[in-house]
Amino acid sequence: MASQQFEPPSGARDFLASDLHARDYVFSVIKEVFERYGFEPLQTPAFERLETLTGKYGDEGDKLIFKILRRGEHEATGEADLALRYDMTVPLARVVAAYGSQLPTPYKRYAMGPVWRADRPGKGRFREFAQCDVDVVGSTSPLADAEVIGAVTGALDGLGVANFRVLVNSRRALTGLLEVYSVPSDVGGGALITLDKLDKLSPEAVTRELVDSRSLSSDTAETLVGDLTADDAAERMRTILKDSEDGRSGMAEIENFLELANPTVGDARIEFTPRLVRGLDYYTGVIFEVIAEGMPGSIASGGRYDHLISAMGGPDLPACGGSLGVERIIDLIDSDATKTERLDVAITVMNEHSSSDVALFATDLRNAHLRTEVYLGTSRKLAKQLKWAADRRARFTLIYGEQERNAESITVRDMDSGEQALVPVKMLVTHLKERCVTSR
Amino acid sequence: MASQQFEPPSGARDFLASDLHARDYVFSVIKEVFERYGFEPLQTPAFERLETLTGKYGDEGDKLIFKILRRGEHEATGEADLALRYDMTVPLARVVAAYGSQLPTPYKRYAMGPVWRADRPGKGRFREFAQCDVDVVGSTSPLADAEVIGAVTGALDGLGVANFRVLVNSRRALTGLLEVYSVPSDVGGGALITLDKLDKLSPEAVTRELVDSRSLSSDTAETLVGDLTADDAAERMRTILKDSEDGRSGMAEIENFLELANPTVGDARIEFTPRLVRGLDYYTGVIFEVIAEGMPGSIASGGRYDHLISAMGGPDLPACGGSLGVERIIDLIDSDATKTERLDVAITVMNEHSSSDVALFATDLRNAHLRTEVYLGTSRKLAKQLKWAADRRARFTLIYGEQERNAESITVRDMDSGEQALVPVKMLVTHLKERCVTSR
Repeated sequence: MASQQFEPPSGARDFLASDLHARDYVFSVIKEVFERYGFEPLQTPAFERLETLTGKYGDEGDKLIFKILRRGEHEATGEADLALRYDMTVPLARVVAAYGSQLPTPYKRYAMGPVWRADRPGKGRFREFAQCDVDVVGSTSPLADAEVIGAVTGALDGLGVANFRVLVNSRRALTGLLEVYSVPSDVGGGALITLDKLDKLSPEAVTRELVDSRSLSSDTAETLVGDLTADDAAERMRTILKDSEDGRSGMAEIENFLELANPTVGDARIEFTPRLVRGLDYYTGVIFEVIAEGMPGSIASGGRYDHLISAMGGPDLPACGGSLGVERIIDLIDSDATKTERLDVAITVMNEHSSSDVALFATDLRNAHLRTEVYLGTSRKLAKQLKWAADRRARFTLIYGEQERNAESITVRDMDSGEQALVPVKMLVTHLKERCVTSR
Repeated sequence: MASQQFEPPSGARDFLASDLHARDYVFSVIKEVFERYGFEPLQTPAFERLETLTGKYGDEGDKLIFKILRRGEHEATGEADLALRYDMTVPLARVVAAYGSQLPTPYKRYAMGPVWRADRPGKGRFREFAQCDVDVVGSTSPLADAEVIGAVTGALDGLGVANFRVLVNSRRALTGLLEVYSVPSDVGGGALITLDKLDKLSPEAVTRELVDSRSLSSDTAETLVGDLTADDAAERMRTILKDSEDGRSGMAEIENFLELANPTVGDARIEFTPRLVRGLDYYTGVIFEVIAEGMPGSIASGGRYDHLISAMGGPDLPACGGSLGVERIIDLIDSDATKTERLDVAITVMNEHSSSDVALFATDLRNAHLRTEVYLGTSRKLAKQLKWAADRRARFTLIYGEQERNAESITVRDMDSGEQALVPVKMLVTHLKERCVTSR
């Protein structure tokens, strides 16, 4: 724990070496998978012009934007002209608008990095947190949706996330659903927002809200919730939705998606989930959510949003994408997979005039790609330096006192067994290189 | 070029795939070298509390801090409470103060990432730019200074930066220099600031400034500048500095540093440079600067700053460090080393009902770690899809029409030679894996 005075600002975190090892591992696996799927990286600035961000995230979202004060003579106005990136989508829209013809068509890009939201900090909720997005801009092909789910689940597989499931629905199927149940279009959006709570609230509570707040008849509300929460909900929907034009095309979209996603995800891990509702405001086609055992909420989500790029200030291009909840995933990862590598060699310094020899040994070992550290303290006591080497988790420690120096040799101590061997200076690199490689 | 309306904010940059390939390469090499030297990573938030940053960079520096407006009901005050990171040193001081006992002693850390300064943007000068720092906190050992120069030059070597030279001096030697030339202590600091301009201005201009602005006699100014710019300046200084206590200990410091740095840097690339003056305000011991042919200014610099951590708000611990001018280095790097890898396989889509087979091929190839893309456009014309594959720089393109489907085979087109081969579906992965590996 940090002393309070020197803590990072509320909602932000310092990552020390042990944290970063796990984080770097997760980001590098995701990057490798995304690139194998042909997504290319994009990195935009931490801040955007304020007007690029405002009005894009609704009133609630706007309040969470970190704004940057104007500078110099304008600082006194108290006005902002820049703001920290709130997500990866608005910068994508700006980039597509800016570089259009320079980008491949379709533009398949991934973005990984921090975003900033002035949310109330809480358990697992930060003001600076990482997002990992893949998006395909400029393709209406269902194969594009399949590429997205493939890259997203491929990353989860690459990270060894076990027992995840992909829930699938379609915005159009939801429109069909409302039609079949004769929900008036003016309350349809609200009804879907309520139905979205089925993963948190009881069916009874959701039914009540549909009646009380969304003006559905109790009959309609009960049947609707009953159908959606039934064990055979998917089967029921496949039948029911045939009665609606939107329902039929939504179902066709879903079936096609399931078929194309099958090679990457596998039948057993993906399912049509009629009660899935997501970010209703901008999705236009297939939507998905990935859940994992023991995790509340989702670890990834996405879908098709054919008008979002234009709403965000870019050209009117069809698009689909997915986002990995990477902060949650980091918590899920088997910590063994992310343990810091040991130090190969620790070099003690027994007296001042051995410093230049020690510097030479260190250089030779590092040039042989062995992780090497030199004792930088003031003590010349062996016991203290061996403790330092043990703290640094060194495999081998070198001791180079007067005796060794006269014999043009170095004592190599195996830190696990405690065994020591006298090795000629000339043989040092070969000797250690071999032993480090075999002990890895 | 971005259309003006959609450009990134002034002084900030969008990095597309081709830019990022070079940048990622540079950062990954630096990281590997720093870790081989036993430096561990530290990542701090993009923003710090405003009071952590103000007053640390002088009046000019303070003006360049990007301040973040308070939020919610406090927004209207026009006050700031947070500010974007201005360098990596203040966050280091805060972290050392915060986590003291949890950190190794000494704490050898590296930090790589963006910092933000509201400087006037110009050629090669950005408001968001990357810094790469190594520092050793808590050691007075000259080996620590040697570790820093080793890691810094090791990174430059790893990146293949040719013909660089390390210029070395010592703060204490500079104090001795002023004493020997009888420069009054109240104008000593100013005189050094003027001498620092010897790499930009003519000796005559510097002499004039020493007389006009620093009140040195023209005799003293001329001799001083003459000695510092002579071909044998280093030799002259070695003699002259013997007349001063500070001069002698400064020279001893330099000679020791040169000896310890020799194994990593090599005699020919490092030299005592009496006219080197750097960040006079906080360096206390050895200082260095790395210059490269054809680059104005330096590509790396650093030294010992034993009181900076406490001045920055941390505990009073001795420290030394170095910083790579990574934005300049990226410009220096041989672009061949950073070329984007080619796409291994592009898959055409000849008709809708082949989509699910295509999705399966793509999955199999990606599972075999081949970079694979699927055509996501609407055209079903082969010529157009082949053009797409060529634009994506694919090595091989797959064609899977009716004929191929009936023969349970796929046409594999070598995009360099134009040769085509019909390969049974079952053999596809083996066939392509082999050919992609041999053609790399």
